[in-house]
Amino acid sequence: MNIGVVGAGAVGSAVAELAGEYGHTVTGLADSGSSVVDPSGIDVATTLERKQRTGVVGDGDPEAVLSAAYDVLVEATPTTLGDAQPGFGHLEAALKLDRHVVLANKGPVAERYADVRALEAQSEGTVRFEATVGGAIPVLGTIEDIGPDQITAVRGVLNGTANFILSRMAAEGLAYEQVLTEAQDLGVAESDPAFDVEGTDAALKCVIVANVLAGDREYTLADATVEGIRGLPANALELAGEDSRTIRLVGEVRDGEVRVAPRLVPENGAMAVSGTRNIVQFETTNAGPLFHSGRGAGGPETASAIFADISRLDD
Amino acid sequence: MNIGVVGAGAVGSAVAELAGEYGHTVTGLADSGSSVVDPSGIDVATTLERKQRTGVVGDGDPEAVLSAAYDVLVEATPTTLGDAQPGFGHLEAALKLDRHVVLANKGPVAERYADVRALEAQSEGTVRFEATVGGAIPVLGTIEDIGPDQITAVRGVLNGTANFILSRMAAEGLAYEQVLTEAQDLGVAESDPAFDVEGTDAALKCVIVANVLAGDREYTLADATVEGIRGLPANALELAGEDSRTIRLVGEVRDGEVRVAPRLVPENGAMAVSGTRNIVQFETTNAGPLFHSGRGAGGPETASAIFADISRLDD
Repeated sequence: MNIGVVGAGAVGSAVAELAGEYGHTVTGLADSGSSVVDPSGIDVATTLERKQRTGVVGDGDPEAVLSAAYDVLVEATPTTLGDAQPGFGHLEAALKLDRHVVLANKGPVAERYADVRALEAQSEGTVRFEATVGGAIPVLGTIEDIGPDQITAVRGVLNGTANFILSRMAAEGLAYEQVLTEAQDLGVAESDPAFDVEGTDAALKCVIVANVLAGDREYTLADATVEGIRGLPANALELAGEDSRTIRLVGEVRDGEVRVAPRLVPENGAMAVSGTRNIVQFETTNAGPLFHSGRGAGGPETASAIFADISRLDD
Repeated sequence: MNIGVVGAGAVGSAVAELAGEYGHTVTGLADSGSSVVDPSGIDVATTLERKQRTGVVGDGDPEAVLSAAYDVLVEATPTTLGDAQPGFGHLEAALKLDRHVVLANKGPVAERYADVRALEAQSEGTVRFEATVGGAIPVLGTIEDIGPDQITAVRGVLNGTANFILSRMAAEGLAYEQVLTEAQDLGVAESDPAFDVEGTDAALKCVIVANVLAGDREYTLADATVEGIRGLPANALELAGEDSRTIRLVGEVRDGEVRVAPRLVPENGAMAVSGTRNIVQFETTNAGPLFHSGRGAGGPETASAIFADISRLDD
């Protein structure tokens, strides 16, 4: 397939870099200020080297990639809340040209799901978004295969930054602020960690799952009950440990409700994944409980989910 | 879709019973000695009640189901080795009529993979077989989505009976023979447990994975190095436990080799699933390691995998 990529951060760059390995051609790549487009395939290595050296991928207008020669547009700009722009506009432009869209950006499907489905219904293109939930872990594809009607609950550890902090607090008996500083030094946490530690990121992922499960009702972040881990006292983890339990930031979609909160989980249980790993549990009517775990973030990991979506478009 | 079902054991019966819930119609059901066929849909409840009461599903010739009005044939007769009959013949009949085939029977894809692919290439029908590996766990679908070329190894605990025995031996310090008898009493082990405890069942599943990963080379049971758990001394588990490890019957496909053997695994690690649960680990080039766990057997659980295959045929 010919792929246009909007966004040249860790995910967009990994998609461009790995596309050839999966048999695809990158015909356009845009960052926030520029683009490079070539219907016969851009020179990815040179483009990414230029981005590294000069901060921009090319000389073109960033919007030029939207009208380039691609079969599928990969939208990998940062997630924004509310009107989900500019990601939503990119998706809209591609669908109006009857092209497919694969999202890494959570905004459009977390904040404007009904609008996305309405645009898709009027297009020959299809929208897929495996990469928006759980990084490399196949979450939405599993829901699609098992059948949304067959799934009674989805819960999981869906934010690697929060999980890293909780794992370190428990293992070392350290205070929240101290571990946060360490995580920032390691690049695991952003300088403004609110999105991760307040539970917003995990909640957006759960909202996306809720939209996929519901079908008839639209969820947004406003429908989620969210409590983060900011300021969690170190002794909460000590007390949990004395009872062979630990604390994880767990997101859950069940009975039409979306909740994210720190929860006590068995120390050696499936939910107690450590470090930046994620885990998702599906409760099903006929298949019992299923657990999937793996890397929930990272450029190549997220790109892998994007290529899985593209392979399903191919069918 | 209209579904024909061959085999009326736990899996075939569950497929017939649940088909309506997934929006499908059962137009034929056969056991080894009889069949019932109705192009507008058989009465599943009455048919299964008759099977329970009299031992047969109907009055028709069992072969009649093969030429009935179905879009997909579900082959759920017992796995056989060597020529994989009669399952292979059922698959052949359906493909020659340009119908799809979904296998629960491991024989055709473990013992005659090249023959299956050759028949499929000459048919409008497609063959899928998610249910042959790991019960409810999406193993083959995950390999398909990530891409066989992207997967460097697959390993896992793939036989619930052997795992139940090992879990009980470790937890209770009991001898192999004693736990086997208990497992037979509970219906977890067959009266002839060889297929499970000698590793054959796990090896067939690994051979199927090897065939899917390889593409260009055919694997059969003869290509697998297989060691089972029969006669494993109780003190092997005790010794492992002293070192915070336990023993699991692990199957592995890596570098073109298929191996099944009892292996030491960390007691609290992902591989140490207990009871009849299965787990599969995928090592990938770009997505890191992924772990999937869940129920590896059971009628509704296996039927769930069959319906997942059918939904992918629909696309």
